[in-house]
Amino acid sequence: MIVILKQNPNREQLESLISWLQEKGVSIHTSIGEAHTILGLVGDTSKLDIDLIAALDIVEDVKRVQEPYKNANRKFHPEDTVIPVRDTQIGGGTLTIMAGPCSVESEEQVVAIAKAVKASGATMLRGGAFKPRTSPYSFQGLGEKGLEYLKVAREETGLPIVTEVMDLSQLPLFKDVDVIQIGARNMQNFDLLKAAGHQDKPVMIKRGMSATYEEWLMSAEYVMASGNENVILCERGIRTFESYTRNTLDIAAIPVLRQLTHLPVIIDPSHATGKYWLVETLSRAAVAAGTDGLQIEVHNDPAHALCDGPQSLKPDVFDPLARKLLKLHAFVRGLDEGD
Amino acid sequence: MIVILKQNPNREQLESLISWLQEKGVSIHTSIGEAHTILGLVGDTSKLDIDLIAALDIVEDVKRVQEPYKNANRKFHPEDTVIPVRDTQIGGGTLTIMAGPCSVESEEQVVAIAKAVKASGATMLRGGAFKPRTSPYSFQGLGEKGLEYLKVAREETGLPIVTEVMDLSQLPLFKDVDVIQIGARNMQNFDLLKAAGHQDKPVMIKRGMSATYEEWLMSAEYVMASGNENVILCERGIRTFESYTRNTLDIAAIPVLRQLTHLPVIIDPSHATGKYWLVETLSRAAVAAGTDGLQIEVHNDPAHALCDGPQSLKPDVFDPLARKLLKLHAFVRGLDEGD
Amino acid sequence: MIVILKQNPNREQLESLISWLQEKGVSIHTSIGEAHTILGLVGDTSKLDIDLIAALDIVEDVKRVQEPYKNANRKFHPEDTVIPVRDTQIGGGTLTIMAGPCSVESEEQVVAIAKAVKASGATMLRGGAFKPRTSPYSFQGLGEKGLEYLKVAREETGLPIVTEVMDLSQLPLFKDVDVIQIGARNMQNFDLLKAAGHQDKPVMIKRGMSATYEEWLMSAEYVMASGNENVILCERGIRTFESYTRNTLDIAAIPVLRQLTHLPVIIDPSHATGKYWLVETLSRAAVAAGTDGLQIEVHNDPAHALCDGPQSLKPDVFDPLARKLLKLHAFVRGLDEGD
Amino acid sequence: MIVILKQNPNREQLESLISWLQEKGVSIHTSIGEAHTILGLVGDTSKLDIDLIAALDIVEDVKRVQEPYKNANRKFHPEDTVIPVRDTQIGGGTLTIMAGPCSVESEEQVVAIAKAVKASGATMLRGGAFKPRTSPYSFQGLGEKGLEYLKVAREETGLPIVTEVMDLSQLPLFKDVDVIQIGARNMQNFDLLKAAGHQDKPVMIKRGMSATYEEWLMSAEYVMASGNENVILCERGIRTFESYTRNTLDIAAIPVLRQLTHLPVIIDPSHATGKYWLVETLSRAAVAAGTDGLQIEVHNDPAHALCDGPQSLKPDVFDPLARKLLKLHAFVRGLDEGD
Repeated sequence: MIVILKQNPNREQLESLISWLQEKGVSIHTSIGEAHTILGLVGDTSKLDIDLIAALDIVEDVKRVQEPYKNANRKFHPEDTVIPVRDTQIGGGTLTIMAGPCSVESEEQVVAIAKAVKASGATMLRGGAFKPRTSPYSFQGLGEKGLEYLKVAREETGLPIVTEVMDLSQLPLFKDVDVIQIGARNMQNFDLLKAAGHQDKPVMIKRGMSATYEEWLMSAEYVMASGNENVILCERGIRTFESYTRNTLDIAAIPVLRQLTHLPVIIDPSHATGKYWLVETLSRAAVAAGTDGLQIEVHNDPAHALCDGPQSLKPDVFDPLARKLLKLHAFVRGLDEGD
Repeated sequence: MIVILKQNPNREQLESLISWLQEKGVSIHTSIGEAHTILGLVGDTSKLDIDLIAALDIVEDVKRVQEPYKNANRKFHPEDTVIPVRDTQIGGGTLTIMAGPCSVESEEQVVAIAKAVKASGATMLRGGAFKPRTSPYSFQGLGEKGLEYLKVAREETGLPIVTEVMDLSQLPLFKDVDVIQIGARNMQNFDLLKAAGHQDKPVMIKRGMSATYEEWLMSAEYVMASGNENVILCERGIRTFESYTRNTLDIAAIPVLRQLTHLPVIIDPSHATGKYWLVETLSRAAVAAGTDGLQIEVHNDPAHALCDGPQSLKPDVFDPLARKLLKLHAFVRGLDEGD
Repeated sequence: MIVILKQNPNREQLESLISWLQEKGVSIHTSIGEAHTILGLVGDTSKLDIDLIAALDIVEDVKRVQEPYKNANRKFHPEDTVIPVRDTQIGGGTLTIMAGPCSVESEEQVVAIAKAVKASGATMLRGGAFKPRTSPYSFQGLGEKGLEYLKVAREETGLPIVTEVMDLSQLPLFKDVDVIQIGARNMQNFDLLKAAGHQDKPVMIKRGMSATYEEWLMSAEYVMASGNENVILCERGIRTFESYTRNTLDIAAIPVLRQLTHLPVIIDPSHATGKYWLVETLSRAAVAAGTDGLQIEVHNDPAHALCDGPQSLKPDVFDPLARKLLKLHAFVRGLDEGD
Repeated sequence: MIVILKQNPNREQLESLISWLQEKGVSIHTSIGEAHTILGLVGDTSKLDIDLIAALDIVEDVKRVQEPYKNANRKFHPEDTVIPVRDTQIGGGTLTIMAGPCSVESEEQVVAIAKAVKASGATMLRGGAFKPRTSPYSFQGLGEKGLEYLKVAREETGLPIVTEVMDLSQLPLFKDVDVIQIGARNMQNFDLLKAAGHQDKPVMIKRGMSATYEEWLMSAEYVMASGNENVILCERGIRTFESYTRNTLDIAAIPVLRQLTHLPVIIDPSHATGKYWLVETLSRAAVAAGTDGLQIEVHNDPAHALCDGPQSLKPDVFDPLARKLLKLHAFVRGLDEGD
């Protein structure tokens, strides 16, 4: 950590800062420049509160050198995390395709879609039972009954299920789910993150609409610091000034996260733009960029889906898409290995 | 609601759309243009799912004409909402000054600050017992004990207390609090909003970091639709590309919300920038723009505050500020009445 | 165009609006709803000033139905534009690779790089002679001499050259250039756009840092309306709240622009993030998403490049990248044609 | 400047970096930590290219400690700059009110408005002769003739005139103008900035739509480095995700710029939101926040203004507003001197 002092700092306050820092166990290297004096703090600075130091009268600025996350940091965990989920896995070279309806509407619907997407190559079933909706007047999901239908679909197809929890009080209902999803709007619901950290199953954290990489990784750190190391990160578009698309897919998240963390990265092209006709192109881009998987909305009747219809594909559109993506994935892996 | 059809829409699908809309009780005016056919939907369109219509093959775009919120909408409730809180009120021409520490650290601390800010003119005591912190390694607040200390400070000063709830499971502990605050990161924690709607006390909703006015009002609508009409909106800065300040205060939120809603509007200049030396100027701007109140962080020792030190004022800095703000508020009100 | 009137509009003003609109040659369909009256304007509304109508007392909102651009609009020009440039072309299924140094530094440098990138598969040479730099104290480019060196490199390799013009007074120097580039900061330099519209060579317009698709297409429209139909659009990252990367590459720009316009689309992965180690992954994503080309910075000594070093690749890193991109491009085209 | 090295940097490269830095005349303080080695560069680092150092293989990150602007920096010029303009001045405690039409339409119009706004208290006349319009099909301004009409209005009222230049080739026509305005879209038209630096009159630079404070000050630095110290900064709203208003006024720009620079700061509340009914409230906020002036659009017939009608006020609305703002300005100054 670097502490930049104001010009001509009060000598007494400076000494008091230095001795306070030394108490915390960090050693200090001082560089006295023409315009600024700079303190270089060496040692374990992860427990120092950057804001507290920045608040001192004599301090102009504080800059962090080390990342504030440890468990999620690739520097301390160089190997990729691979997360087993029933007969499949997330990460480790697999292309995970999570497909299914935005919202579970009936047993028939979700079973039919599960069968269709499995036949096309999907490896997991997604579907919402508890739905975060902007309006209190919109359909809020089938709740517990939706979870039951998902389990029926799993039994019929063998596809593991991933579904969203909205409040920690719902967690007991998720005992039997394969992957717990935490939505973008809850990315910084810290009580939920801590509670998810005490579950014995993987947790997929969607990026908040305006969350930085660091904040997102700190949310993963909340789950991991509570004991659950099986965390998956899902990019679903960020909010920008462009309003033609609902969000802007940050494709660079894939290589950036590869560098910063060992956790697997999934792309959600459906929510990233809110337009079904962009799903195929964005999925291709994500596969070419090395994503560990995709989460794609598929509905047998998008025009009558109870939520997020505009971003869903029909099974007969999903089928060739999934096949092409699997081919592209194999080709891209071949590119790297060489010939 | 306006539905813009693609060029040469399939006639059968168009008829099916029209009869479906008529079933929903809306009547339809059709304008056939050179390049587009436009359907104007007349009647109560608030129950129509805009996304569902937009998903239809024959539809190019759908544009809402009516706001999707009703309880919070000034059109249906022209009079300003005034919210009584113990001996004071929020709205109705009062300048509410909520002051106190970011985080409650001890009984002595919060009582001392409460006495100081009351003497300077504050009308409510703010203080965090449950603290949303980006890092799991940062101080997370004193929790229930913090609430107790706040109540002691209320007893000693008479100042009503406003404090943040982070999860609905904590609500029973908030029975005795005067105003429940929902933080920016929880603005779309819909389960918490619904639960807050069942409380018998005012709820102050902070604007999410990248929430539009409409989304923010929809969050108010969640609380109101659950039966609690006493909602306060608090602008605390939005996230932009500018990184010199932590957030960008959207001062236009004050007059825009005045137009859209009847609910009171509070400004938080402390979190809006993250820099204590900007608090005074932004507070003045907010008062001149007609805010119903301010939420200002005051700490007796900002450099050792356990969280958010950089944005806190000392009581001896807060004192002249509060006095100037009250004078400015009186002057600005005089400007409008006057000569 | 849709005009939404306020509740109970003044009858006289309404009649005056309607007759004014009729004078302009548009016909009007009126829908009278409970809360709003809506005018649907039918006919050629492209000459109506939307802001002017929105300013009327009786108007609540105006929504455009037709896009404000015509020459650039795919609706009026369904075929892809293919732009011939010497022995190559931009668009029409070719993967154009524009490679070269950010800044031309010497004849030796630019010739050496040109030879290297040509050997790797590049089809055009990029290089800056006039450099837009944030600081007046940074290297501003070699100017006219830089253009000369580029032409020498063209003679030696046959690669057509693309280079940036910064002010319309420089245009006479660009007579001999193959493609004129207009930089992101000049995307709305309307005088420059008009002047570029009078040149007899293709113009590549980089997207402004916070330009919407519509604004960007309107800049293309400026060039086209002045008579030059050979316009290329280059996405180079937009400005968001994320500061880890310099900009955020908007990969969805490729399929969105395919839909809205017939003009070719190029991706600049170097400026999109400002980090050289992200160039390969973003280039792959862009090719998989169907870009018409890439503009990649290559420097024989990035650590000593006079500008934008951090985003440049060395020729020996560029070489396998270019080869992989060409393979990926062929594979992706095969996916669509094939089985 | 702080250079953070990667773990275990190559010793040879490190020595070569250190000796290269020493050649540039900076001395180096090295702090060796567990995870990182940090170099603190002391001396005049303003000529070092931060990007170039960041590009080195052994470097993880570089952080600037000193601001990159000198002429505009308050640290090197602690006194406020006050700019005389005919009989008035900008800065130094005056509230400058620049009022007038967005676009000059006729001699009668601009003379009538000039007389009206002068009577209400305006101190300068604004009006556009060359108009930057997003669409090539919109009215582009009267050009040279518009400048003539402005001069007639100045003769009739004595109000100095401020008007926008769009390209450096127009500068000869601006010889007789009092303040040259550079628009938001041209904030980084570096050739224009340099040319403006050679004029003998004040230059007002509007903030680019997504320009940081630092970039904006670097644009001022361009003008100042070319010899013209009379620069005025005008905040006109920045681009954010919120689309209800055209832009978001960054009110914190006033106190932040006061801290960073000695140059005067003007607020444009008309363009900041694009809605005339927000002008009054935002103007009040700006005055309370200590702005040096306001630029307000006034039109005698906003509904028929040829551009930007929605954000214009009528003279009879402007009159009481201007009077209130002058009273508020006097009151706010009294607060600070005060009792």
